[in-house]
Amino acid sequence: MFRVVLVEPHYGGNIGSVARLMQNFGFRELYLVNPLANPLGDEAMRWAVHAKHVLESARIVKSIEEAIDDCAVVAATTAKPGPKMVRRTPLTPREFAEKFSEYWNSDERVAILFGREPSGLTNEELELADIAVTIPTSQEYPAMNLSHSVGVILYELAMQKRMNRKVYDPPREQSYELAERIFQHFIDTIGRQNPQETMNAFKAILRRGAKTDKELRAVIGVLSEIEKRWLGR
Amino acid sequence: MFRVVLVEPHYGGNIGSVARLMQNFGFRELYLVNPLANPLGDEAMRWAVHAKHVLESARIVKSIEEAIDDCAVVAATTAKPGPKMVRRTPLTPREFAEKFSEYWNSDERVAILFGREPSGLTNEELELADIAVTIPTSQEYPAMNLSHSVGVILYELAMQKRMNRKVYDPPREQSYELAERIFQHFIDTIGRQNPQETMNAFKAILRRGAKTDKELRAVIGVLSEIEKRWLGR
Repeated sequence: MFRVVLVEPHYGGNIGSVARLMQNFGFRELYLVNPLANPLGDEAMRWAVHAKHVLESARIVKSIEEAIDDCAVVAATTAKPGPKMVRRTPLTPREFAEKFSEYWNSDERVAILFGREPSGLTNEELELADIAVTIPTSQEYPAMNLSHSVGVILYELAMQKRMNRKVYDPPREQSYELAERIFQHFIDTIGRQNPQETMNAFKAILRRGAKTDKELRAVIGVLSEIEKRWLGR
Repeated sequence: MFRVVLVEPHYGGNIGSVARLMQNFGFRELYLVNPLANPLGDEAMRWAVHAKHVLESARIVKSIEEAIDDCAVVAATTAKPGPKMVRRTPLTPREFAEKFSEYWNSDERVAILFGREPSGLTNEELELADIAVTIPTSQEYPAMNLSHSVGVILYELAMQKRMNRKVYDPPREQSYELAERIFQHFIDTIGRQNPQETMNAFKAILRRGAKTDKELRAVIGVLSEIEKRWLGR
């Protein structure tokens, strides 16, 4: 599961918009760390439209630590990662969604921290996170409005959830069993002379590259041909 | 090039937010069809923050026809495509961005229509478009706020532009020449016994599947091994 954490949001309009976006994309848990606007006030409620219950069930806490204490992973969003706090390259929202996609079906929490409107998260706050996420924006004007950043990140996570469904639900276009069988066959036939690394690369290429079973069968055809000649000599 | 067309936008906050998003993601052309709020008024200007010039150079027109007249493609965004106007399945923003990605480097215009906040585009307005784009949202609450829909669609287009750059700019991780060489080698060695279709599938798998030259070289290793044995027998 994913938890949206807004750190010191300043404007009710943004808090309300985030609630609406959460409902649009199927998110439930909203934490507000020391909000400067009332999440149940007129402005927030007006922007939430049909997602007022997200605001009503939001948890208000006094520190980021309190908001992330029970989370397995903490991601921090940042417009421009400074030199000090970034131990790793920040992920794009798409990379983030791909990497943590299994948390859609898990009770373990992934917290996503969003900083205050004027200034984002401080370096100390970024240090609390395991990973940084940065939306690729133009150099000319990189700073997005808070609720629009939330929108992009929740959209990417929701897209990934849809794709998970497609991958796990039958019928798949490429059946993994067939790929596995082909590869084993390949190893048995001609693989033993090659180093493990080569074999792994070949396997990875087949896995990623073949879109359908028909294509995989074409590979079988080639390998059978090889095998016949090979063993027949 | 892409043109953002807002049809009868009601709120200055949304108009200003759209201007900011356009600047965030590298878009220039904004058309407003009969706006109900003043795009140069206080509210719009406040939400635009550092993108006020996008509002100042926006064109105000009296009809959708005027806004799309010189466009090569017209896309219409819609939350829930009704039965009447949808001749085709609507595209997701990602499919839309992939399909029309070549327009990033073209002078030809792709107009993207966004409807009025309360009710979207009418069926007659949707009929003016070549394609429909729908953001996948939850069944419970599919209707997004106008500027947040704009944000998601501009983000997808900008991501696609980035990926275009990666594909076309050196250094590439996989050099096409090497893949081509391997494939030719493969045909010469063991390919002649296999039908063309099989060879094409094999080639497609290599192309899509191999991420780096290192992986392609692993394939060379395997093929050389085959060749040695084959020719040597």
